[in-house]
Amino acid sequence: MQFKKSKVVIIGCGNVGSTTAYTIINQGLCEEIALIDINKEKAVGEALDMQHSIYFMNRNIKVYAADYDTCKDADIVIITASVPMDPHANNRLDMLAGSKKVMKSIVKSVMGSGFNGIMIVISNPVDVMTYYAWKLSGLPKNQVIGSGTTLDTARLAVEISRLFDLDSKSVSAFVMGEHGDSEIVSWHSATIGGKSLSDVMSDNAERAQHETFDALREKTIKAGWEIFHRKGSTTYGIAASVTAIVKSILFNENRILPVSILLEGEYGLHDVFLSVPTIINETGAKEIVEIKLNKEEHDALVASSKVVASYYDALKD
Amino acid sequence: MQFKKSKVVIIGCGNVGSTTAYTIINQGLCEEIALIDINKEKAVGEALDMQHSIYFMNRNIKVYAADYDTCKDADIVIITASVPMDPHANNRLDMLAGSKKVMKSIVKSVMGSGFNGIMIVISNPVDVMTYYAWKLSGLPKNQVIGSGTTLDTARLAVEISRLFDLDSKSVSAFVMGEHGDSEIVSWHSATIGGKSLSDVMSDNAERAQHETFDALREKTIKAGWEIFHRKGSTTYGIAASVTAIVKSILFNENRILPVSILLEGEYGLHDVFLSVPTIINETGAKEIVEIKLNKEEHDALVASSKVVASYYDALKD
Amino acid sequence: MQFKKSKVVIIGCGNVGSTTAYTIINQGLCEEIALIDINKEKAVGEALDMQHSIYFMNRNIKVYAADYDTCKDADIVIITASVPMDPHANNRLDMLAGSKKVMKSIVKSVMGSGFNGIMIVISNPVDVMTYYAWKLSGLPKNQVIGSGTTLDTARLAVEISRLFDLDSKSVSAFVMGEHGDSEIVSWHSATIGGKSLSDVMSDNAERAQHETFDALREKTIKAGWEIFHRKGSTTYGIAASVTAIVKSILFNENRILPVSILLEGEYGLHDVFLSVPTIINETGAKEIVEIKLNKEEHDALVASSKVVASYYDALKD
Amino acid sequence: MQFKKSKVVIIGCGNVGSTTAYTIINQGLCEEIALIDINKEKAVGEALDMQHSIYFMNRNIKVYAADYDTCKDADIVIITASVPMDPHANNRLDMLAGSKKVMKSIVKSVMGSGFNGIMIVISNPVDVMTYYAWKLSGLPKNQVIGSGTTLDTARLAVEISRLFDLDSKSVSAFVMGEHGDSEIVSWHSATIGGKSLSDVMSDNAERAQHETFDALREKTIKAGWEIFHRKGSTTYGIAASVTAIVKSILFNENRILPVSILLEGEYGLHDVFLSVPTIINETGAKEIVEIKLNKEEHDALVASSKVVASYYDALKD
Repeated sequence: MQFKKSKVVIIGCGNVGSTTAYTIINQGLCEEIALIDINKEKAVGEALDMQHSIYFMNRNIKVYAADYDTCKDADIVIITASVPMDPHANNRLDMLAGSKKVMKSIVKSVMGSGFNGIMIVISNPVDVMTYYAWKLSGLPKNQVIGSGTTLDTARLAVEISRLFDLDSKSVSAFVMGEHGDSEIVSWHSATIGGKSLSDVMSDNAERAQHETFDALREKTIKAGWEIFHRKGSTTYGIAASVTAIVKSILFNENRILPVSILLEGEYGLHDVFLSVPTIINETGAKEIVEIKLNKEEHDALVASSKVVASYYDALKD
Repeated sequence: MQFKKSKVVIIGCGNVGSTTAYTIINQGLCEEIALIDINKEKAVGEALDMQHSIYFMNRNIKVYAADYDTCKDADIVIITASVPMDPHANNRLDMLAGSKKVMKSIVKSVMGSGFNGIMIVISNPVDVMTYYAWKLSGLPKNQVIGSGTTLDTARLAVEISRLFDLDSKSVSAFVMGEHGDSEIVSWHSATIGGKSLSDVMSDNAERAQHETFDALREKTIKAGWEIFHRKGSTTYGIAASVTAIVKSILFNENRILPVSILLEGEYGLHDVFLSVPTIINETGAKEIVEIKLNKEEHDALVASSKVVASYYDALKD
Repeated sequence: MQFKKSKVVIIGCGNVGSTTAYTIINQGLCEEIALIDINKEKAVGEALDMQHSIYFMNRNIKVYAADYDTCKDADIVIITASVPMDPHANNRLDMLAGSKKVMKSIVKSVMGSGFNGIMIVISNPVDVMTYYAWKLSGLPKNQVIGSGTTLDTARLAVEISRLFDLDSKSVSAFVMGEHGDSEIVSWHSATIGGKSLSDVMSDNAERAQHETFDALREKTIKAGWEIFHRKGSTTYGIAASVTAIVKSILFNENRILPVSILLEGEYGLHDVFLSVPTIINETGAKEIVEIKLNKEEHDALVASSKVVASYYDALKD
Repeated sequence: MQFKKSKVVIIGCGNVGSTTAYTIINQGLCEEIALIDINKEKAVGEALDMQHSIYFMNRNIKVYAADYDTCKDADIVIITASVPMDPHANNRLDMLAGSKKVMKSIVKSVMGSGFNGIMIVISNPVDVMTYYAWKLSGLPKNQVIGSGTTLDTARLAVEISRLFDLDSKSVSAFVMGEHGDSEIVSWHSATIGGKSLSDVMSDNAERAQHETFDALREKTIKAGWEIFHRKGSTTYGIAASVTAIVKSILFNENRILPVSILLEGEYGLHDVFLSVPTIINETGAKEIVEIKLNKEEHDALVASSKVVASYYDALKD
């Protein structure tokens, strides 16, 4: 008899890492959660706090602080640790210096354990850091995923659903490209209840009157900032979106989510991590969905890829 | 302080009614479930059986057998009772005779209690019986809903997802019209992961090679029969689909589901119950989503409405 | 990278087997459910019906009809198939003849696949059939579990909670011994909210006035019959109780449940399957909890064990 | 038709308040959550962050920032706002000065809205602050509940379950009295799997060897501090325990939880808020469970009540 533990390791016990662990606990997704933090005592405290919560949950889960050795038999490692980019740096090399150092140290430690599961990267700039983590890890491309525009897709759905007093899950629209200012929306295939979003907007001009596609995209991009300048961080949206990715992997769901993934010819792009709708299952990124974009959309996606790729030189040693 | 109980009454404790109650229990959707059956002892037995199950559930729910009086303060009444149509009858009047009698008796008893909540009709032929229940009840149209093509929409999604090894919830495609042979699919707005279904089918011709839109629609229509001739009933799909409607009402979710609802001008149709995507919340059918159909699709919907309406004369006394 | 599927096989697609599968689906406990029935078409129909339900569930699960080969890599096999004991038989050998034949065929087929997971037996008389399945299988004792008095424990909690209008989960009391007329309750350690049940009963004599411990035990034993003679079967309670066992195994919960398990010295009993509180995790029956019974309770447990063991001669070939 | 919204208001958007809201969202317990904070922008930011998370949840919930007016039709108001007691104060009057002021302002605003639901107080010292809130509110005693030792009960269960590698929910033991150093455990009625905890400890002396009842109580009391000095706050345990209270109220579960509640003769105590096992349902604290304590336990409970009551003079104006 072979026992099959499902185990998630979370690296970095800041707001995002801890809240992600707590979301996984609330949703009962795995048998064990190991927490790693550069401040080991912080991880111990978070684990103890979470253990108490499990008494009130529907599923018993083991949560504990650990060292990198624990990654050896993990199904998923989630890297949340990050260093803010230095906005006063003179160039991208300097901007990314701190983040590179942290990521290099983490990935080396993770891979040193013998890890061979799925790596999810949340650290920003996420498309750049995921590429970097993939390069450092030597893992197959399907095993390295950035959280990407999964969160942006939720934010767009919330903006649209607010106009029409809808459940946001009834909105079908995907944000793609960079998790950042250059992200795009595939508007022409966006639907609500099987009705094209264009028709919804024009048929309900009154209710939606001040909104345009451009304005909705702007609000989506700015949503993080709207939260950040009010509470000093963004927590719940990102934690819930990463948990959705975790669920589709651990439960082998084959759900489609727009994660940051290596493109090798898809959408005419090469050697760049960008978010596109992707089927997620136990193998990680099983298959990319290649939406037929119109010229304007495709040009914007190519432009978005250039923004991301512009950082790649700075990743070289 | 006003106590606000959420209460669902299920009329008819056959396979579908009982399994619907059990699904609501598993999902923890309300405080009380009352079971009514013409055989009161059957209802008592089902309630007792379900009570034992709740010890293992995440939420405590009261389940009990009751008389029609219990409908007085119910949020939702689900009518599952039905009489098979007589296939040897000479005309629609004769075919529906048994069903009419049962429905008339039930609706009279429900309304006699002072009920003023949402009525969900599952009894077949569902579009005809929902219309009849609405007429008999005198309730506003938003408060009378037929389960309609909610189940067919799931069946279509399952057929499509099977081709591409996908989570069926990642398929966005709606079945509309009669819950029966004349139902239609709004193919041109169907998408998977933001990609139009047409593109998915042509880009993956190999994987999907023997399937056409027509064949998928055929399989959807025949799915009930495929189950019926193997197990003598259909149970789980219908119970789960009705529970989704119940959830969107009780939890005021504003989810879009294709339920059978009175059309009064929408889609150019009048005075007929047909399934179309509808926003469901605490008020019942809050708002109809009017998809822009192409001519072929619209013609098929009109034809479907005529099939349903052809039974209406037989409903008159 | 090793993919770890969690898989449950259900043998017998009658009411209990199918409802157990549906409960597992509702609670989202595994990746795959395989259904086996002597009538393969029945299994195909049930699987298709359940597939449609999953569109409305929180977790995507694969359900399919299969042959015994599928047991090879299953975590759990649940045996629900049974033949009613012949009440007109002249002796136990004759009474069990049909059940023996079915169980022998099933266990042989399961073990022939190379199965090495946890076997849960529901077939009645469950303590006898579990012993028989264990003998036939050659599996270690921790890997063969009978559903036992898990259901009776729920029924007792429901009876008690009804008196005091309580959540049945707030009652801590265990039914032990045979799943049948000789079962016992460890009354002296039963509590409600940390208060001994004796005190609860005497302090609330008014509310509980017609009930004695004996009467509560009687009602618990007769609960199955109360359901059976009203609906012709018992379904939901047994399905939910087995699902609780499945959850504690698959999720490695270490929950304590009173399952039927081989005693080898515990409670002074040997070589008999009886229900006692047992810690359930991924290894199956990890550890037996040995409650200190008073003399009366222990005598009753010994008597119960003799009832079960009296069938063992009839199991020999 | 009367629409029945279930609505929870959370006052104070610090770690505890926000995490409680997020836990309620994860568990899908109500239709609406309103957030109030003295820093309105903070509440707006938290609400927006949570809205994005709901796209990934099983239930659609409305979350928004609001003013005190929103309490008017709320089912539950949770008061989390607090001011640390001044440890350098010369007396209890000075120690509580800040907390009194905040609580007075909040309760006045809540009651000014016309609120008539259940008030849950988390602010520390919780037994004192709940008493104060009750006095200020004029609400019936069943409608004012302190979170009390619900969390301590979880912490004790976690300590015990760790010794025996058990699901903490399989431990039945209640912490009572002050949420603080004087709290007690009703050891003599504590059980695991129906076995008295004393027997479990003595039969497993090896595994439990360094632990005594006193040491377990100490660890329970110190658990908060173990977390606090490592992460600077306690969050998840308290949020999950309050959510359990919320669930039992909103879902009318009649679950027994040890909350801080006004004693009027129970346990021989009068006019003091202390935690004792209490049946929680839609009416709030429906009924107190009066455990028969032995002399030592009762003396300790009386002593605990005196600790709490010693603050009451300082609450007078």
